[in-house]
Amino acid sequence: MSTKFSFNINSINGKARTGQIHTAHGLIDTPAFMPVGTAATVKAMTPEDVKLTGAQIILSNTYHLMLRPGAELINNFGSLHKFMNWDLPILTDSGGYQVMSLAKLRKITENGVCFQSHIDGSKHELTPESSIKVQYLLGSDISMAFDECTPFPADIDTARKSMDLSMRWALRSKEAFIKRDGYALFGIVQGSIYPELRYESCCRLKEIDFDGYAIGGLAVGEGQDLMFKTLDFTVCHLPFDKPRYLMGVGKPLDIIGAVMRGIDMFDCVLPTRSGRNGQVFTMNGTLNINNACHKQDKNPIDINCNCYTCTNYSRAYLHHLIKSKEILGASLLTWHNLFFYQLLMKKIRDAIEKNQLDEFAQSFEQMNNSISINI
Amino acid sequence: MSTKFSFNINSINGKARTGQIHTAHGLIDTPAFMPVGTAATVKAMTPEDVKLTGAQIILSNTYHLMLRPGAELINNFGSLHKFMNWDLPILTDSGGYQVMSLAKLRKITENGVCFQSHIDGSKHELTPESSIKVQYLLGSDISMAFDECTPFPADIDTARKSMDLSMRWALRSKEAFIKRDGYALFGIVQGSIYPELRYESCCRLKEIDFDGYAIGGLAVGEGQDLMFKTLDFTVCHLPFDKPRYLMGVGKPLDIIGAVMRGIDMFDCVLPTRSGRNGQVFTMNGTLNINNACHKQDKNPIDINCNCYTCTNYSRAYLHHLIKSKEILGASLLTWHNLFFYQLLMKKIRDAIEKNQLDEFAQSFEQMNNSISINI
Repeated sequence: MSTKFSFNINSINGKARTGQIHTAHGLIDTPAFMPVGTAATVKAMTPEDVKLTGAQIILSNTYHLMLRPGAELINNFGSLHKFMNWDLPILTDSGGYQVMSLAKLRKITENGVCFQSHIDGSKHELTPESSIKVQYLLGSDISMAFDECTPFPADIDTARKSMDLSMRWALRSKEAFIKRDGYALFGIVQGSIYPELRYESCCRLKEIDFDGYAIGGLAVGEGQDLMFKTLDFTVCHLPFDKPRYLMGVGKPLDIIGAVMRGIDMFDCVLPTRSGRNGQVFTMNGTLNINNACHKQDKNPIDINCNCYTCTNYSRAYLHHLIKSKEILGASLLTWHNLFFYQLLMKKIRDAIEKNQLDEFAQSFEQMNNSISINI
Repeated sequence: MSTKFSFNINSINGKARTGQIHTAHGLIDTPAFMPVGTAATVKAMTPEDVKLTGAQIILSNTYHLMLRPGAELINNFGSLHKFMNWDLPILTDSGGYQVMSLAKLRKITENGVCFQSHIDGSKHELTPESSIKVQYLLGSDISMAFDECTPFPADIDTARKSMDLSMRWALRSKEAFIKRDGYALFGIVQGSIYPELRYESCCRLKEIDFDGYAIGGLAVGEGQDLMFKTLDFTVCHLPFDKPRYLMGVGKPLDIIGAVMRGIDMFDCVLPTRSGRNGQVFTMNGTLNINNACHKQDKNPIDINCNCYTCTNYSRAYLHHLIKSKEILGASLLTWHNLFFYQLLMKKIRDAIEKNQLDEFAQSFEQMNNSISINI
């Protein structure tokens, strides 16, 4: 049985929309948040627990997996899904972002990026062709074109050269991609914060024709205002009927604002990483479980939350676990945060379907600040 | 509803026996293995997962919990059970062992032990009375008398003085213990490897009259032969109709040998600690998942094991997780090891009931060496 990769839009509220993406491993309700499973595991969680939080897709990393345990090894197991015991969809990034930010002694040429592994210093090259091959070997439901994530800030000449290179790599990525039913390739818009560059990037990617379009080069230090402005003059140039993915975003208010600007997909390490460090999300703002005010608190993180953690554990116990650096603390806080993010997406989808996204956004923004003084 | 603390013996095979211990929080089939939950968590596992491995009781630590988060704090939640979301029985050690091995600048007097916390250097005192009070506040189903764990080796004069002190502390522990239905206090036999001291210790404890009897001061470097010899001349002096607990033991063959010498209860960090480090137990011996031979191995840890880990994950994936220092690796290997230990106890109980413990022990010993060359 094969499923065509497809995207259908169910309802529209301003520029925001709800829909479903259909992939080889099942469907994804959009707007969707993808938990990050960098090294073939969503850190501190079993795959069953990730599913219980409501996640329908996870993101994993070409760069990390090609270095350890290796794409061929994973392919010998059939796919990344089988290797890691996750049978729902997986999106893999292309490694472009990681070679720039994690690898050592990287050197960019027209052909690709030569770099040294952050693990053992071994030398490797990633090109559009090799990145797409790795993602093919992993069996990714959604592969990403190989790109250069333009650093921020960048002057317009630097940003243009970088975007030009990414567009040439996007074409090579498309040519290297082997089309199969249920599997998709997304292009990545670059162009920093410059409207004319973003416009040109959208046009060139549309000409190549991808199954979906990501917006890269944001959430790299430009701040929420510039991010939203860039979305405002970029998303309008993307096809209406294809999924739009804002890479590496973000905080709850970033996500809500981006959905209002037409984005369908998100990924971010924030709920997992901050969970391991003791920061938890609630509809009323964030809490730091490390703080002494939680030492004797019999309440759950959020009295209204139905997640496993809030159903069974007090803030005092979680405070104790995090202070004691116990692994269970990382697991329980990650669980809550992933559940919160999925619930947030559900509320966003419901609000869009009721044509009440503006009201939801305003009310969330007000609530979200109500306990920030306690952080 | 209140349950009397009781112990019934169901079947006997040589000196070994099967039975049940009834406590305020439920029953324990013996011979039993207690996973260690030092800091109010069995490391890397949720309480539900610990239950799924078959565990009916866990051990926790007076020393650790009195320092962090504090016994009064836990008591405010009702009990340690409620604080950590574990509703089955809990045994707590008295802190005697930990103040000797973990605390700094400890000073032993007739009254008790003054020490500095290994966490923050703060000064504390543990006495028989304060140890029993902490265990009362924790709501332990089984409290342990406060003792001095005699170092090994110790000459007979040192061992006698240490045992004498522990026996005076045992009496004070009993006097401080508030008897409630379903809750028990165990005494701890000391006397190092000297038959006359162990005999005297047993007699003095029996005179005080405890609900169960532990054998302390073993598994401290004396080796399996001396441990078994000490059991041989000690267990015979303990009451037949009370539970016998060998503290801090041990490897599978240590446990089997001790059961054959009449022991009913065990605790050890081995399955949890070695799981976090990559060592796993099978009926054919131990494996180190870190070893390169597992890098591409599609088999589970043990093809015959029905645990969550073996049902869902390959050695190759586990190798990848442990090499990548991923939290999920620690959780999955701990899960397997705890499941293995509970299965081992089940097989021991079955063998006793069939009067075939000798055969089981021989066959286990043969199998157990079969893959040790691969470690």
